[in-house]
Amino acid sequence: MSLHPDRLFPADDRTRAIARELHRRTTGLPLVSPHGHVDPRLMSRNEPFPDPARLFVVPDHYLTRMLYSQGYTPDQLGVPSADGSPSEADGRAIWRRFAENYHLFRGTPSRLWLDYTFAEVFGIYKPLSGETADDFYDHLSARLTEPDYLPRALFDKFNIEVLATTESPVDSLDPHAELEAMPAENGRKWGGPGGKVVTTFRPDNLVEPGWPGWKERVERLAEITGVDTSTFDGFLSALRARRRDFIAAGATCSDHGNRTAGTLDDPKKAAEIFHKALNGEADETEILQFPAYMLVEFARMSVEDGLVMQLHPGSDRNHNKWLYEGWGRDVGGDIPSSNEYTLELKPLLDAFGNDPRFRLVVYTLDETSFSREIAPLAGGYSAVFAGAPWWFLDSPEGMMRFREAIHETAGFYNTAGFVDDTRAFCSIPARHDVARRIDAAFLARLVAEHRMTEDEAGEVAVDLAYNLPRRIYGLEK
Amino acid sequence: MSLHPDRLFPADDRTRAIARELHRRTTGLPLVSPHGHVDPRLMSRNEPFPDPARLFVVPDHYLTRMLYSQGYTPDQLGVPSADGSPSEADGRAIWRRFAENYHLFRGTPSRLWLDYTFAEVFGIYKPLSGETADDFYDHLSARLTEPDYLPRALFDKFNIEVLATTESPVDSLDPHAELEAMPAENGRKWGGPGGKVVTTFRPDNLVEPGWPGWKERVERLAEITGVDTSTFDGFLSALRARRRDFIAAGATCSDHGNRTAGTLDDPKKAAEIFHKALNGEADETEILQFPAYMLVEFARMSVEDGLVMQLHPGSDRNHNKWLYEGWGRDVGGDIPSSNEYTLELKPLLDAFGNDPRFRLVVYTLDETSFSREIAPLAGGYSAVFAGAPWWFLDSPEGMMRFREAIHETAGFYNTAGFVDDTRAFCSIPARHDVARRIDAAFLARLVAEHRMTEDEAGEVAVDLAYNLPRRIYGLEK
Amino acid sequence: MSLHPDRLFPADDRTRAIARELHRRTTGLPLVSPHGHVDPRLMSRNEPFPDPARLFVVPDHYLTRMLYSQGYTPDQLGVPSADGSPSEADGRAIWRRFAENYHLFRGTPSRLWLDYTFAEVFGIYKPLSGETADDFYDHLSARLTEPDYLPRALFDKFNIEVLATTESPVDSLDPHAELEAMPAENGRKWGGPGGKVVTTFRPDNLVEPGWPGWKERVERLAEITGVDTSTFDGFLSALRARRRDFIAAGATCSDHGNRTAGTLDDPKKAAEIFHKALNGEADETEILQFPAYMLVEFARMSVEDGLVMQLHPGSDRNHNKWLYEGWGRDVGGDIPSSNEYTLELKPLLDAFGNDPRFRLVVYTLDETSFSREIAPLAGGYSAVFAGAPWWFLDSPEGMMRFREAIHETAGFYNTAGFVDDTRAFCSIPARHDVARRIDAAFLARLVAEHRMTEDEAGEVAVDLAYNLPRRIYGLEK
Repeated sequence: MSLHPDRLFPADDRTRAIARELHRRTTGLPLVSPHGHVDPRLMSRNEPFPDPARLFVVPDHYLTRMLYSQGYTPDQLGVPSADGSPSEADGRAIWRRFAENYHLFRGTPSRLWLDYTFAEVFGIYKPLSGETADDFYDHLSARLTEPDYLPRALFDKFNIEVLATTESPVDSLDPHAELEAMPAENGRKWGGPGGKVVTTFRPDNLVEPGWPGWKERVERLAEITGVDTSTFDGFLSALRARRRDFIAAGATCSDHGNRTAGTLDDPKKAAEIFHKALNGEADETEILQFPAYMLVEFARMSVEDGLVMQLHPGSDRNHNKWLYEGWGRDVGGDIPSSNEYTLELKPLLDAFGNDPRFRLVVYTLDETSFSREIAPLAGGYSAVFAGAPWWFLDSPEGMMRFREAIHETAGFYNTAGFVDDTRAFCSIPARHDVARRIDAAFLARLVAEHRMTEDEAGEVAVDLAYNLPRRIYGLEK
Repeated sequence: MSLHPDRLFPADDRTRAIARELHRRTTGLPLVSPHGHVDPRLMSRNEPFPDPARLFVVPDHYLTRMLYSQGYTPDQLGVPSADGSPSEADGRAIWRRFAENYHLFRGTPSRLWLDYTFAEVFGIYKPLSGETADDFYDHLSARLTEPDYLPRALFDKFNIEVLATTESPVDSLDPHAELEAMPAENGRKWGGPGGKVVTTFRPDNLVEPGWPGWKERVERLAEITGVDTSTFDGFLSALRARRRDFIAAGATCSDHGNRTAGTLDDPKKAAEIFHKALNGEADETEILQFPAYMLVEFARMSVEDGLVMQLHPGSDRNHNKWLYEGWGRDVGGDIPSSNEYTLELKPLLDAFGNDPRFRLVVYTLDETSFSREIAPLAGGYSAVFAGAPWWFLDSPEGMMRFREAIHETAGFYNTAGFVDDTRAFCSIPARHDVARRIDAAFLARLVAEHRMTEDEAGEVAVDLAYNLPRRIYGLEK
Repeated sequence: MSLHPDRLFPADDRTRAIARELHRRTTGLPLVSPHGHVDPRLMSRNEPFPDPARLFVVPDHYLTRMLYSQGYTPDQLGVPSADGSPSEADGRAIWRRFAENYHLFRGTPSRLWLDYTFAEVFGIYKPLSGETADDFYDHLSARLTEPDYLPRALFDKFNIEVLATTESPVDSLDPHAELEAMPAENGRKWGGPGGKVVTTFRPDNLVEPGWPGWKERVERLAEITGVDTSTFDGFLSALRARRRDFIAAGATCSDHGNRTAGTLDDPKKAAEIFHKALNGEADETEILQFPAYMLVEFARMSVEDGLVMQLHPGSDRNHNKWLYEGWGRDVGGDIPSSNEYTLELKPLLDAFGNDPRFRLVVYTLDETSFSREIAPLAGGYSAVFAGAPWWFLDSPEGMMRFREAIHETAGFYNTAGFVDDTRAFCSIPARHDVARRIDAAFLARLVAEHRMTEDEAGEVAVDLAYNLPRRIYGLEK
């Protein structure tokens, strides 16, 4: 079942045959991963993965949140608590809990990704359940000790052309330096510009004055760059300097996880808030607006240095107070809420929306913006591209609705191609597999309904899977 | 046509065959109806239904509103006016007007429900139209006098396991007491805890100070409970006491039709508004916010007494002024508008969202919240479940979009199962039939696309139709 | 490919066969075009169309905006600049640029419309591309000089029964007078009431005090009507007088492109703002609210004079500042944003929502309102009808989602039928072809799923294509 060759293709024979043929054209293409959250040390250190529970379950908030939703606690799943109090230490116990609840994931993308990974990466072909939990655990544990399952070996096996990680300006780029220092393979370097693993500039924790430790991070930025960050101009100079470091480490993009898509173009007002915030005198509105001013400043920098800007708004971070207080950030407690783009992005687009030197990839968690705002913006401004359906929408139905809602106004060539956006290295091929299949399925319908020829659709399929992400995210060199 | 055995199943042969098989597993299951508006006296009195027009047309605002939309007046349809001025008294004339306009309902769920009811319940197999109006009227009138068409006989024929009615705390529970006093049949009591007919605690008219007669109802609550309701503490105590009465009458749920999903956790402020409102001194904002405070108070009570909380926000009640002024509430003049959940529910979820003693079923009239808010909330908080698509969305397309938008993030086991939510007793089997068919059709697609095995889908189909509503709404005993 | 007889029909054989049959019933029906932007002088003068680039590319902002989105400038596409600075004058060069980028339009409605027009209207059966650009240009240029390709000849060839143009109250109605003066053909006049070409009353530039030149237009209205417009009563009288002129020129509708669907019923307050605005003393809120007051005034006039009111809100006009400043209005720089109807329309509906003399056709660019607001309003108020999916939603997927979201609550008979809304005269048959095919495809699914009989669906198909637009827009005489 899990790996039927026609999985995710439409049921009717006519469309399925076309989908199969379109998909075939993309199966051999390398994976391009211009946006994600894999730890670069995985590749620089190339150490074996931990046990199956810690590889698959504990860090994957798609899985843990589903188990919380049915009454399990983070402690029962081995998620480290904020205060260091003990949580389940036995990987096998965690794994069993997960396996016994595998039915909860029926119909979810997690289920598709895991079934693919178990079968294609680890060679397990039976269904996971309470009964087979131990078999899986033993089989996976054994594989993880083998050289073929070390991160770099998998990287090559997965046919990844390039993988972008995500770092804050105050994070170390040492892992990327280590990668760059490694010998090239088949003429490709591991790190640095044009390398297999590149970084992405993500300054969120420097632009949200309300995020605990903000002032210390602004100071840390000064230490790293040697630029005084006690003035707004200095802060901007330091960020510019740090962007140069990131570019030297291979970055082609910046990424911005602002709460909203709000933009404000007024450096003087931004400077005022910055200084107030450093002195602890900024009010709540100012604190919330500062990222909107900064987004325009970063766009200004992009025009200069060429980093492609990615914008990921719409998530109400740490919504689940109990999770946040007990187990911290990024454990599955974020919830989307509605988002505006047309009016919010206008100041930024007034400044740079038609500038050939600027590129903005817009993501959303709010599907209502697909046809109403994002498609018209991407289909009207040279700078704007529609990012792949993200997070809760990174799923067969989400991708299908994205294509259905976007392509009639923005076409295919104002969309930026698939990004896997994953922390889970082993799931990368599975995620690209789903995306390529859904695009094939969607295009097959257009062909079957005589809205496009099969040749055109084949060209589009290859562009979506490979050429567009390389081109839009600046990874063509 | 109307009752083709494959109705509502996808057209392509592969998927249709699977849908047929999945549906077959649910056809014999009893109907569980945990939320609805049938009058309990129907069962306690067991009197014959009135004439066809008064059974089918006059009280069904799905039907009357469609006829208003084409220029008919409530008077022409026999809807009683607010001031007692006469309306059409001749059932046959009303029926003819309805039958002549049956084409207006093409493609609507009302049409599906009625065609099912005419055929399966009343044995009429021809299409309704102006020409057949009288035949229908005569046939239906004749059936309605027969013992097999008395309410209790139909209850058993429909294979209803449990039917929840809805009462206000100031409504009498006498009909439920009468039901409880009736002899058990096949080991099942008609009323009381675990009975065939149970009540639901719906306090809307006690928590909206702006609703005419509010103060009188607060006083009436004191009379009923013997608890002084002139203080906020007393008011809460009286509500708690009344909840105990409802639980004794079989209630397992409360239901809340607030205008928004707003919640506010501040009993002191709530008390302040309560006292102001009693004195006629609350301002408009306070009046609108009082239900938000009360929702948290009711959640607090649920944690204590175990009533499952249902929340039905999003309807702008009595939008059609002409209808409201002439014919009163609940005649089809409500119109939905947009609704927020993520931020609005946060205070309540901060307090009880992860509490194993609390359960909240969230409904919506705003589909934009399906994938953006309700699925993430249901798939992240142990207390939250996604309620069935409601009212204008209780339809084949509405249900299909609900499943498509919800299941990838929340799975199937964070949805609460179908509720028919009907005033129209005779439509209950038709409504469950549509829901079971659409779930079968949806699951069949997942199977046909190799996203789930047929065995898994069969298990899910049975869970959605029977096990989940019993479990989530506390009806398993 | 482009003109496969089954284009836009679902792929599975069962549904496709039904769609083919339903569509067949509509293919011979005349085209009714109750809303659009064709220049009436096209018909009154009957001059040959200009070169292919100026016919197809330059004035079509669906095409130019897509080319801007990929970095082309309006100058490169021959769009006249605001300051008269030169733009590309060579039609062939513009055409080549367009043809080389034809792949950008894959999957878009523009592509469907153009392929249809090239084949069915101009007899070109090969695909457009950079290679075939010159062949197309030569072929089209040759055809455009032939008598069969003069506007009136095409009007008849297209089988257009009636075409509504759109004029402002301060526009001249001379072209319509010229049409009325032309000899009747086959018993049908070209202009005037019941003519082949009628006008529509669109007062936007008189109700937005913030639109440059507003005061001058208010004065111009006085000149045209001979009514003093320096008082609000005079302004209303002049508008009433002008509506009589429009009705004499065949108008059956008014059209309103307000930014929002906001309505306010307070003539005294409206008068106050009007006078302030004339004196340049209205503040921003007042300026934004004036159209909301005026909408109710126009509804009041409709009740008197019978013009059907059309409402097109939701577009943030001239969003692309660079385009607006360089090339002016209506060149593709508008972007939708979210829109409310339920609360916004309430004042107008309180006044006239159930008045049999009033009819309001509501359009939207915000799909979220389809099921949530527009269907319930159209399915509940006798005055309200759901307008066809508009602009960015005038597309196969947009139309399909419209039907899916609307019909279960409003049925088919509260929708107003297709309007092509086009400036591009030659695309009219293509647009109706797409609409009729999509409605056939949608209805075919309902038949295939046994939700409607094929006979009923055939009747609905004809009603949607022909009877409903004639009836709802008052074109039956």
